[in-house]
Amino acid sequence: MTDAAKLERYARSTICRPVEAVAVLRPANADEVVAAVKTAARYRIPLYPISRGKSWGYGDACPVTEGNVIVDLGRMNRIREVNATLAYAVIEPGVTQGQLSEHLRSRGIALWPDCTGAGPDTSIVGNVLDRGFGHTPYGNRAQFISGMEIVLADGRTLRTGFGHFEKARSSQLFPYGIGPALDGLFVQSSLGIVTALGIWLMPAPEAYSLFICSLKNDEDIASFVEDLRPLRLDGTLRSVIHMGNDLRAISGGMAYPRDQFSNGGALPEDYRRSLRESGGLGAWMIAGGLYGSKSLVAASRREVRRRLARAGRTLQFFDQRKLDALERMSRPLAGVRRVAALRGKLSSLKSLYEMNRGIPSHRFLAGAYWRHRQGLPADLSNADPALDFCGLLWFPPVLPFTGAAVEEFLALARPIFARHGFDFFVTLSSVTERSLGAVMTIAYDQEDAREVAAAQDCANALCESMMDAGFPPYRISPHFLPYLARGSDTYWDVVAEIKQALDPDQIMSPGRYQPLS
Amino acid sequence: MTDAAKLERYARSTICRPVEAVAVLRPANADEVVAAVKTAARYRIPLYPISRGKSWGYGDACPVTEGNVIVDLGRMNRIREVNATLAYAVIEPGVTQGQLSEHLRSRGIALWPDCTGAGPDTSIVGNVLDRGFGHTPYGNRAQFISGMEIVLADGRTLRTGFGHFEKARSSQLFPYGIGPALDGLFVQSSLGIVTALGIWLMPAPEAYSLFICSLKNDEDIASFVEDLRPLRLDGTLRSVIHMGNDLRAISGGMAYPRDQFSNGGALPEDYRRSLRESGGLGAWMIAGGLYGSKSLVAASRREVRRRLARAGRTLQFFDQRKLDALERMSRPLAGVRRVAALRGKLSSLKSLYEMNRGIPSHRFLAGAYWRHRQGLPADLSNADPALDFCGLLWFPPVLPFTGAAVEEFLALARPIFARHGFDFFVTLSSVTERSLGAVMTIAYDQEDAREVAAAQDCANALCESMMDAGFPPYRISPHFLPYLARGSDTYWDVVAEIKQALDPDQIMSPGRYQPLS
Repeated sequence: MTDAAKLERYARSTICRPVEAVAVLRPANADEVVAAVKTAARYRIPLYPISRGKSWGYGDACPVTEGNVIVDLGRMNRIREVNATLAYAVIEPGVTQGQLSEHLRSRGIALWPDCTGAGPDTSIVGNVLDRGFGHTPYGNRAQFISGMEIVLADGRTLRTGFGHFEKARSSQLFPYGIGPALDGLFVQSSLGIVTALGIWLMPAPEAYSLFICSLKNDEDIASFVEDLRPLRLDGTLRSVIHMGNDLRAISGGMAYPRDQFSNGGALPEDYRRSLRESGGLGAWMIAGGLYGSKSLVAASRREVRRRLARAGRTLQFFDQRKLDALERMSRPLAGVRRVAALRGKLSSLKSLYEMNRGIPSHRFLAGAYWRHRQGLPADLSNADPALDFCGLLWFPPVLPFTGAAVEEFLALARPIFARHGFDFFVTLSSVTERSLGAVMTIAYDQEDAREVAAAQDCANALCESMMDAGFPPYRISPHFLPYLARGSDTYWDVVAEIKQALDPDQIMSPGRYQPLS
Repeated sequence: MTDAAKLERYARSTICRPVEAVAVLRPANADEVVAAVKTAARYRIPLYPISRGKSWGYGDACPVTEGNVIVDLGRMNRIREVNATLAYAVIEPGVTQGQLSEHLRSRGIALWPDCTGAGPDTSIVGNVLDRGFGHTPYGNRAQFISGMEIVLADGRTLRTGFGHFEKARSSQLFPYGIGPALDGLFVQSSLGIVTALGIWLMPAPEAYSLFICSLKNDEDIASFVEDLRPLRLDGTLRSVIHMGNDLRAISGGMAYPRDQFSNGGALPEDYRRSLRESGGLGAWMIAGGLYGSKSLVAASRREVRRRLARAGRTLQFFDQRKLDALERMSRPLAGVRRVAALRGKLSSLKSLYEMNRGIPSHRFLAGAYWRHRQGLPADLSNADPALDFCGLLWFPPVLPFTGAAVEEFLALARPIFARHGFDFFVTLSSVTERSLGAVMTIAYDQEDAREVAAAQDCANALCESMMDAGFPPYRISPHFLPYLARGSDTYWDVVAEIKQALDPDQIMSPGRYQPLS
């Protein structure tokens, strides 16, 4: 495709960095990818592969540099294999969260995929290749894959793990194979086009329970983090726990009240507090799942209660039966105004419950519309923050999993948002048992040039501050490439040498995760 | 060191492949490693780094090729950091299992390292770099590291993960950093000298219980494996469960009864059965640990019992209190002959219990002496199978975690051992929730040339058979290098291209994990 309208759509960018491609290829299978790569190599045309191109807040579908041909892998959406006994699937990059979830449920296959909040239409492979994380025990996604199929810059096909042995039967079971493990090279990199991936799936557990904890006061987060870490470290909690601040929840139901604050700027603290209080929300909302046999989930629930319930915290557990009961109770009164609010909360709770068991929802895209001129769409099921011109810049530093680090982080980040006139959005996620991904969102109005400039300044200030404090990000949009090599030593040189060895003509994804100096 | 006696000791090899180095360097720190590498690069002298050089059954301390200078990192044995809150240590390659365990216990630091059966004197880093595995929930060791320090072939120092950022505070907490993850490149490879490693440690759990299950009949293993897999997949069992056949246990207390079978050959089946019956052993002995809060360990124990206890299986749980009680009960009768046997079993049980909580023992080296002329040493605490000229060849194919795969594997492997006159030793270990490492040992007599030849033939036949069945090994000694590229495609070429980029003069560990054609 080369027509201008199509190219313009691909170039729409939440980060306000619309890089237009010269053409878009849409291969149907790996052979067509090989053919495209060989042609590109012959004529030295740079290719920029995307899976579904919905990397909102991180660069969307846009190439990093000018003059690229986008290789849109969206048509490669085959689920090549599902193994119910050994609990894995082999999927192509076009397979979405919604598609895999639906595939498994409609066939009665008792396997649960991991799920992110980015909605049903996003690619699983694309997310893994950006080292994204979800919510379940398989949420640290790059650790739950086995076997990549990759088309290299010269058109060769590389299979990782044991996959390169013709007859190997554990390619999707033992990720490392024998010899150096190469999977890591193809994550956040520009070394090839991943055309298939083995991903591990969680066997549907006998029991599943969601817990929600709300913290009354903002400053309660540090002690909560201290109480949470041992539960992650001792295996009581095996999933990625998410701790979002009030605005994460508030923005699920409304957009920035532009009518009341016509000159923009961050919401006043007391207004924000009144919003969360009227919504029955805490300063922080924590959600996580418990999965396993009935007896173990019951024991874990008691253990979580014993070790997390404290004054100033509201801790609740939900399973399917309880959600159904709440639903039944609220139904007869659906017309009553206060019950309508309750039903809204219940519906949101159900989406959260489902996401934590691998069923994606559009609902969690709401936050992208916080500063959008048209406000929050009534129906999010066709929402696409890039096509809709949402302004969204994410920056996710990694913190040590301690209360002290969280306090230090908040003390640095909050004033930067305030100074630039933005509301402070953050979710702390326990990606590993020892670290937290602190995902911050700068939500801004793309139609207001002043706000766009402020968002970019705010992003730069955040990045400077976090790198300087020893909290580098786990993932970035191209916006931050100038910072990538700051204070760094040797590593990027080695990456460049490997790039030179495997892609000497720089055909593949030029600029992707490559530091700008 | 260049004197002949020293070089001869380094060249002693359990796999009967004594490759002598031209010299041995013993650097005291990373700077000395850098200096050695720069000198080697200038004069194009190949270096072969070893950590403690105790890779018994896999090549010992020997270089793969002739003419190497061994870089013995044994003096680099600093424990650079221990963080009790975030549960990790940073160690150098000379640090042994025993040293780290002792370090933590003597200082009252409530962290448990993982542990293998290779004894207290073996290197942790060396084992990780061969992708070894242990017994605890951290047993899949290469997944529980964060942050490598590596001296490259040109003398540059590379720090992986976030470690290359000067100020990063999560280098030991979030292994992937940002950009391509390089750790995997330095495992089972020849790309650099790892001079330090961050390893994660398990916080001492509130409760720990060891379970032992013995299977009466040989054929019971397939159904046991089928029952075990769901317990691993649903997180009830989080550690690497080991399933050893009878000979693994028998060889812990005796050597091959050469007096009764003077012409060698595998033990007759009925004799072997009588040995295990008189020892109160099953055809298979399974061991694994449960770790966590008291309530969760109690619930897990009930769950394991409910789902594993069946006719033909004896399932027992042990905690410290029970072991102490058994000890007290047996003490007054220590002189009685049958009680002495019981006390021997108890002592062995205690070692197993301790190994599963990170305290290494020399006891598990006994198997290496199975065919040794002098039999089993009375005191194993100075045992070194290479220095003692034990004959030991390991071959560990990876199997899908299913009963059917185990049956197929056994039907292939057993006759090969029998045909070559060797006793069939195997342990199946649940390295991942979806795969088993089937570690086989060919124990042979190094002083019998016929037996040495038979061992090599047996090894080749095993390798042929396993590769052909789709069960490639997770790790190999140089003996198997001619098989490494069989039926393979592209992967080894890519590894060679990366090698060429980072070590064009082939200074580093020539031949290590490089296929021979």
